[in-house]
Amino acid sequence: MQHIRTHIQKSPQLTQEDKLLLVSWTDQRNPPDEETFTQWAQTIAEHGKSMTTSERQNLVELGVIMATKASSSNSNAIYKDPEIRDSIKELEKLLGVNNSYSKVSFYNAIFPEEKVEIDEITPFDIEKLQNNLDGPMAELKSRTKAVLKDDFFRVPTDLRDKDKLRMLVLSQCQELGNQGFGAYAFPSEYGGDNSTGGSTAIFETLAMGNLSLLIKFGVQYGLFGGAVFQLGTAYHHKTYLEALGKMDLSGCFAMTETGHGSNVRDLETTATYNHETRELIIHSPTQKAGKEYIGNAMHSKMAAVFCQLIVNGESHGIHSVLVPLRDENHNELPGIKVLDSGYKMGLNGVDNGRIWFDNVSVPVKNLLNRYGDINEKGGYFSPIKNPSKRFFTMLGALVGGRVSVAMASNTAAKKALDISINYAIKRRQFKTLSDEKETLILDYPTHQQRLFPLLAKSYALTFALETLREKFVESAVLDDKREVESLAAGLKSYASWHATDTIQECREACGGKGYLAANEIPDLKADTDIFTTFEGDNHVLMQLVAKSVLTEFKQEFHDGGYMAIAKHILKRVTTAWVDKNPIATRNSNAEHLLSEEFHQQALAYREEKLLFTLSDRMRSFIKKKLNASEIFLRTQTHMIALANANVERFINDEFVKHLAKMEKSPEKEALQLMQQIFALDAINRDKGWFLENDFISGDKSKAIRKVLVKCYRMVRPNAAAYVKAFGIPEVLRNAEVLNEKESILMV
Amino acid sequence: MQHIRTHIQKSPQLTQEDKLLLVSWTDQRNPPDEETFTQWAQTIAEHGKSMTTSERQNLVELGVIMATKASSSNSNAIYKDPEIRDSIKELEKLLGVNNSYSKVSFYNAIFPEEKVEIDEITPFDIEKLQNNLDGPMAELKSRTKAVLKDDFFRVPTDLRDKDKLRMLVLSQCQELGNQGFGAYAFPSEYGGDNSTGGSTAIFETLAMGNLSLLIKFGVQYGLFGGAVFQLGTAYHHKTYLEALGKMDLSGCFAMTETGHGSNVRDLETTATYNHETRELIIHSPTQKAGKEYIGNAMHSKMAAVFCQLIVNGESHGIHSVLVPLRDENHNELPGIKVLDSGYKMGLNGVDNGRIWFDNVSVPVKNLLNRYGDINEKGGYFSPIKNPSKRFFTMLGALVGGRVSVAMASNTAAKKALDISINYAIKRRQFKTLSDEKETLILDYPTHQQRLFPLLAKSYALTFALETLREKFVESAVLDDKREVESLAAGLKSYASWHATDTIQECREACGGKGYLAANEIPDLKADTDIFTTFEGDNHVLMQLVAKSVLTEFKQEFHDGGYMAIAKHILKRVTTAWVDKNPIATRNSNAEHLLSEEFHQQALAYREEKLLFTLSDRMRSFIKKKLNASEIFLRTQTHMIALANANVERFINDEFVKHLAKMEKSPEKEALQLMQQIFALDAINRDKGWFLENDFISGDKSKAIRKVLVKCYRMVRPNAAAYVKAFGIPEVLRNAEVLNEKESILMV
Repeated sequence: MQHIRTHIQKSPQLTQEDKLLLVSWTDQRNPPDEETFTQWAQTIAEHGKSMTTSERQNLVELGVIMATKASSSNSNAIYKDPEIRDSIKELEKLLGVNNSYSKVSFYNAIFPEEKVEIDEITPFDIEKLQNNLDGPMAELKSRTKAVLKDDFFRVPTDLRDKDKLRMLVLSQCQELGNQGFGAYAFPSEYGGDNSTGGSTAIFETLAMGNLSLLIKFGVQYGLFGGAVFQLGTAYHHKTYLEALGKMDLSGCFAMTETGHGSNVRDLETTATYNHETRELIIHSPTQKAGKEYIGNAMHSKMAAVFCQLIVNGESHGIHSVLVPLRDENHNELPGIKVLDSGYKMGLNGVDNGRIWFDNVSVPVKNLLNRYGDINEKGGYFSPIKNPSKRFFTMLGALVGGRVSVAMASNTAAKKALDISINYAIKRRQFKTLSDEKETLILDYPTHQQRLFPLLAKSYALTFALETLREKFVESAVLDDKREVESLAAGLKSYASWHATDTIQECREACGGKGYLAANEIPDLKADTDIFTTFEGDNHVLMQLVAKSVLTEFKQEFHDGGYMAIAKHILKRVTTAWVDKNPIATRNSNAEHLLSEEFHQQALAYREEKLLFTLSDRMRSFIKKKLNASEIFLRTQTHMIALANANVERFINDEFVKHLAKMEKSPEKEALQLMQQIFALDAINRDKGWFLENDFISGDKSKAIRKVLVKCYRMVRPNAAAYVKAFGIPEVLRNAEVLNEKESILMV
Repeated sequence: MQHIRTHIQKSPQLTQEDKLLLVSWTDQRNPPDEETFTQWAQTIAEHGKSMTTSERQNLVELGVIMATKASSSNSNAIYKDPEIRDSIKELEKLLGVNNSYSKVSFYNAIFPEEKVEIDEITPFDIEKLQNNLDGPMAELKSRTKAVLKDDFFRVPTDLRDKDKLRMLVLSQCQELGNQGFGAYAFPSEYGGDNSTGGSTAIFETLAMGNLSLLIKFGVQYGLFGGAVFQLGTAYHHKTYLEALGKMDLSGCFAMTETGHGSNVRDLETTATYNHETRELIIHSPTQKAGKEYIGNAMHSKMAAVFCQLIVNGESHGIHSVLVPLRDENHNELPGIKVLDSGYKMGLNGVDNGRIWFDNVSVPVKNLLNRYGDINEKGGYFSPIKNPSKRFFTMLGALVGGRVSVAMASNTAAKKALDISINYAIKRRQFKTLSDEKETLILDYPTHQQRLFPLLAKSYALTFALETLREKFVESAVLDDKREVESLAAGLKSYASWHATDTIQECREACGGKGYLAANEIPDLKADTDIFTTFEGDNHVLMQLVAKSVLTEFKQEFHDGGYMAIAKHILKRVTTAWVDKNPIATRNSNAEHLLSEEFHQQALAYREEKLLFTLSDRMRSFIKKKLNASEIFLRTQTHMIALANANVERFINDEFVKHLAKMEKSPEKEALQLMQQIFALDAINRDKGWFLENDFISGDKSKAIRKVLVKCYRMVRPNAAAYVKAFGIPEVLRNAEVLNEKESILMV
């Protein structure tokens, strides 16, 4: 109201009397009576009738036209004064009615008999928005899409026979190799581009196409190729990388066993060194020591087998050995047994299998010996003396897999959002807004509430994943890769759960259409469902994240001694004061709720508090003389909560950092809205925690919900533009509901 | 401590001096010093060494043996006195350490070098527990299971070709008809048992087997059969029911159209009456008026087509007409076009299709005329004059479909729980508890937290669904079926979401094994995913529930006038006083948290408060002259929250009612634990709301979480018994991980 009064005072065309009258109407304690209101509404309705429908939705135009017509003055030029228009526009903005939803509501309130729907208006440039999402790898992403557009990469929806599917996907995977995508991470002398970052961008983009091809590609070039490249040395690179990058040598990554998945350190397969023959004998001592879920197992000529390396009767822990599986005629070599894993929930174009080894001998040079080797005298040696450190260094070298899966997860979620949001702006059901047509389902608040937080999450994740990619590339030269490992573990878990949740919600949001294979969602769902499990079970990974946060915390204490503790406590108290003083706790002003400061404070506070309480609890258990494993079990759920808080805080921070780099623009505003929804939704989903800890009051919590509803309304007119900015090429948008491929003729 | 003191005072074998010493140790403000505690632990460890592992886990035995050995007295007979044992046992119970988890913790604390795992002990009789779950239809359920056991009903996991699958499922569906299951709801003269309740029990049980067969069965006998039986009259019954019940007449239920699913009232297909020929002309006026997702469409000879009945140019709303689709050679009849819906996410053994009608004529007697008919003069007449009431009465007659889907959903969730819980007590990963073996994954608190609330929900739903079945049967003679309709809508939504969530969680909880088709979870997931959509989209159904709750509320006001309002306000105030006084809000005593009273109050309070605030908001919008559709849109999310609160309150109430009917027994205790978890988990999931509304304090909310963790520990030793009580026959438990079918020989 203060703003309105200021505007009234500033308006040169108003008389003093007018001004007084208008100002008196702004007195909230003494508003105009109902009769006056009714009269206004009638006046507006009357004058509005002469306008066209689209004119009526523009409040500024409506105001000006009304003023012109209603004015007693004969000279109406002043109403066309751009200054006055700007003044009204600013008022519109201040009142929060400068979005199409408000206009529609206003219109429908005034002209109830001729209701209108929200216009699709796009105040931002979709291409510019896409550039923000695509980031520095935009060109490579485009190139990957261009290749995928070829008909050769289509997979018919009704091809369900696994053997036929696998043959098709195999040929596509080889073709990607031929086009140079497989070797991208490798050195140029082996046909590559020396770009591990680029290889993740390729993987991220391939996820727009068939997901069996994506995983087959990942197994051949990323996992098998990655093992040879990262764990092998010059001999292996020279011998294998080039052929491998074109899939002339087809291989698999034989790590997981039936008995051991998450617990890689205790794998049972052995590689026993025989000094006389200079050979390693690979053996599966039990049924459950067999390798399981191994992608590419049926097509491979060779496997990178992870096993306990035993030299002179002593075990040196997990190492990887290249073991030939089949001869030129694709017959299994002696001692090798491979079985098909059969049909799976999805990814049936990938040939997963089980592999057992019965005392299979390979030359010692097949040991991928970067981190551990056997010398000519038959002695074991390693650049990393500590076996535990050696184990984690080897696994750390393979972190690219998790980075890639995190990115592909978000791509899959984007595909599902593209389908369900576009369906929701075509699909009508029940008459509510208009008497003529049924309502578009995206105009239902519940539908917005279901889809838009997921849309915002996909936006937010994009920026966090770009940072992950940068850190992954930078980490290549670091000995200590713990930061990127923790980040990859957290984001892989968060993104894959996001994909699972999103695709499920999109399936339901598309109703029966979402259940038909022709609309792509069924395969998206089935193919990605394993993303939460492979490359590390999410629950196990989240505990890794928590341990890493705890370690860092302890390190900080350790390095700084008492000063650090004091500083920490000071910081803690300060935070408590800033964030938990009664005014902040109760501040439910929309501006505050939408501010980056509030979001960052809230998410940082949650992480910090969970960290403190977790370490407090652990300390008290240690005092009570509980052993480490007992403490671990008792704090397991707390650890997972901490990990989630850590990941969400990170994602939001990265989004805010990206925004800070942008100049003021419609695209920045569009992204800001996504950031606001992401952060407020994160707080709202965990409001129980924030309320329990008195970080927000009950009223503030309710206010957050209301602000979110308003944000959703702001997204609504641009929903299609937001998903278009994901940049999924038309040829990969094959869902029938998107393309109106309903070309079936009537009888 | 008071209890301990009482026991000490009651013990005849203690001297006065002993008693004083013991009582002094119970002074919590002045506990024994650490040295004394250490001494105790040492004494226990020392004496315990001579015991076997299993003896040591029995605290009573340990105490008695220690006392015997340590006693200075030579006469130890008193320690064998059963009274003393009982006394110690009672103490154990009061301290909450009479479960195997506590015993293991105690054991591991005292003997850290030889850790043990929790024993599988089952203090209740599994068969008796199953009897509780099976309820009054136990015998029919057993009979259905017996039939399913036949090899004829097996569907091979690797049969993925839809056409072959469909043929197999078709033959199985016919066989169920031949065995009398199809006609069960029909009168005995047509081969039935006059039991609509029985037919839902058959459906509930069939969900333990192949789900394509379940849905095919439901379409043929429940939907097509239900339409003929419920909407038709004597002529239709005589002409069709017998053949239909044996599937000699194969039919489909052609309601949903491409353009209209949830909004049945606005279906576009027309049936126009031609008085000259006494025929109805069935027509699809547009492409989108085609029937879609129609189960059994490819195999059917006839369809019950839902369409707008037009007589003398006037539309009388939705009616159902029997339209022959194909001739004896299974060729489409003139004017009929049927297309295959192709592959779907799941249920690929069901032949869904699309159907269009191009001016197809059928005799007027094909109109299912129970609620609307055309007389010999060509005039329309109906026993229900009000068209809206007629429409809802016709739909109400078909409520059996929703009742059945609700039950099948819970069965599917039970199957997934059976697989994942049994896998979790076999699967080990990482060493924590024991130095010998890796830990069973069900011993991880996170794993318990993931699965046990879902287990409790399946238990809770079973009793609520039994009540639904009763009310469904009773409603047959009622004109006003609104109560059962609302209940069916709410429970169908709740149960189908429960199935979706549970199967998803179980998939993830089984890791890679959960992704293999051989372990059944993939098909469970894919086949049930549509349950949240068909027979009414859950979001739409939940709004129906909310409307029904609101209507009842308004009715109450209307009937009672001011007195009712006054009574309501009184009740509201009373509730506010009882539940929201500062002491109750903060009472985090475990006994209070576990009490039925607390659960019922909390869940009733939530429903009532949401109802009041919703009707308040609606009233204020009405005052502001918003029209009905605007009000509906603005309160849509609030309505869904109310519906959820209504359903959860109902489920808990029914569970409590069932418990009240049971005599004190181990089975009752086992069920009580499930009820406690169900209720506390419901409160915990929505703790944000309870905190926002000051129903519980932050500390109480935290206490609920802790009590839940303790409840999960109580479930842990009996987890396998709890799922066994679901009564899934061995022959239908085909997941490889359950049956150790890992008979693959080593190479």
